[in-house]
Amino acid sequence: MQDVLAANENTAEENAKLFRDKRVLVVNLMASPGAGKTSFILRTIAALRDAYGIAVIEGDLASKVDAEKIKAQGIPSIQINTGGGCHLEASMIRQAVDYLDLDEVDLLIIENVGNLVCPADFTLGESARVLILSVPEGDDKPLKYPFIFKGSDILIVNKVDMLELTDFDMERLEDVVLSLNPDVKIVPLSCRTGDGFDEWLSWIKERLEAVVRPS
Amino acid sequence: MQDVLAANENTAEENAKLFRDKRVLVVNLMASPGAGKTSFILRTIAALRDAYGIAVIEGDLASKVDAEKIKAQGIPSIQINTGGGCHLEASMIRQAVDYLDLDEVDLLIIENVGNLVCPADFTLGESARVLILSVPEGDDKPLKYPFIFKGSDILIVNKVDMLELTDFDMERLEDVVLSLNPDVKIVPLSCRTGDGFDEWLSWIKERLEAVVRPS
Repeated sequence: MQDVLAANENTAEENAKLFRDKRVLVVNLMASPGAGKTSFILRTIAALRDAYGIAVIEGDLASKVDAEKIKAQGIPSIQINTGGGCHLEASMIRQAVDYLDLDEVDLLIIENVGNLVCPADFTLGESARVLILSVPEGDDKPLKYPFIFKGSDILIVNKVDMLELTDFDMERLEDVVLSLNPDVKIVPLSCRTGDGFDEWLSWIKERLEAVVRPS
Repeated sequence: MQDVLAANENTAEENAKLFRDKRVLVVNLMASPGAGKTSFILRTIAALRDAYGIAVIEGDLASKVDAEKIKAQGIPSIQINTGGGCHLEASMIRQAVDYLDLDEVDLLIIENVGNLVCPADFTLGESARVLILSVPEGDDKPLKYPFIFKGSDILIVNKVDMLELTDFDMERLEDVVLSLNPDVKIVPLSCRTGDGFDEWLSWIKERLEAVVRPS
């Protein structure tokens, strides 16, 4: 297992170098199944497509449902099927980017397999790790899946429009998350209504500008 | 990996023999993080505790949150922490049952790590595989995580009280699930309101009676 992780780390560093050379900001998007990763990507595309070149890599055990949703928007999209694999690996990303023209891409979003465990162990060469937790999953998830919360740069708390149907306590969540990871940015929002989405857009645009138009 | 699976299979068979000898019905409960596994267990305990001896094994990467919720009901409960592991294995169950008096147990519920991928590969010696999908996760999950849907005996569709806040289509879900697994029983319910719960109770009671009072 240590060998597998070390080999992945090497390939991830090669990926990171490629992305730096091509001035591409790469987001590794992680979440449970059904937390809203694809809806989040679609809304991000709609908001940023006029200003930036965007491409998406979709990771799933099977099916091409998600890649087709992205392609329907006219955005380049590669589907990786892992077979039974529970996470993406750097080598899969290395192969997938051969199908993209990175000179046309400013923002590459990689939608990882829906899983709060295994993706935490495998870096892909990304610039930022974006974790989505959705309100219906409950505010106790950081206690149960601490590793992925510790390793994320920003935590999107999606489906805040469902707050009143649950006993989800945003303050309790923030306390636990910040105790695990004091540097993480926490953004509650709803991909359905759009509430709170601007804060995410500011965060990602600041990083995009630093990559695309470095001062 | 094949060796790991084969070793697990052997231990699972030993577990299964122990459970048969002790006349214990064992449920392997699988789902995404936050689909409602613990709420489902708590409601099942409330409904069945007067008629049957119940015990619970809780699987999580970290924390003892869930085991404490069960213990607060006066039900024996063992917490397994997998460290970073993404699923329970038969050997962990073998060790955990040493802490239970199986002569007092009719129904043993094992709450697996929240994950729609890895638990599908590791049998534990269970009598029944119960999979929970919650409405906010979306009706497209069987296409993306087909293996776990194929291997389940009953699919609980939880949080039907949230249906109107989503575009979840129960017929579409049933079509896809039954195409993957024609023998699976599908039970929509809400652990919050109790709607539909009786159908699950009938299903499990029938199996419990066959084990506890075989004709």
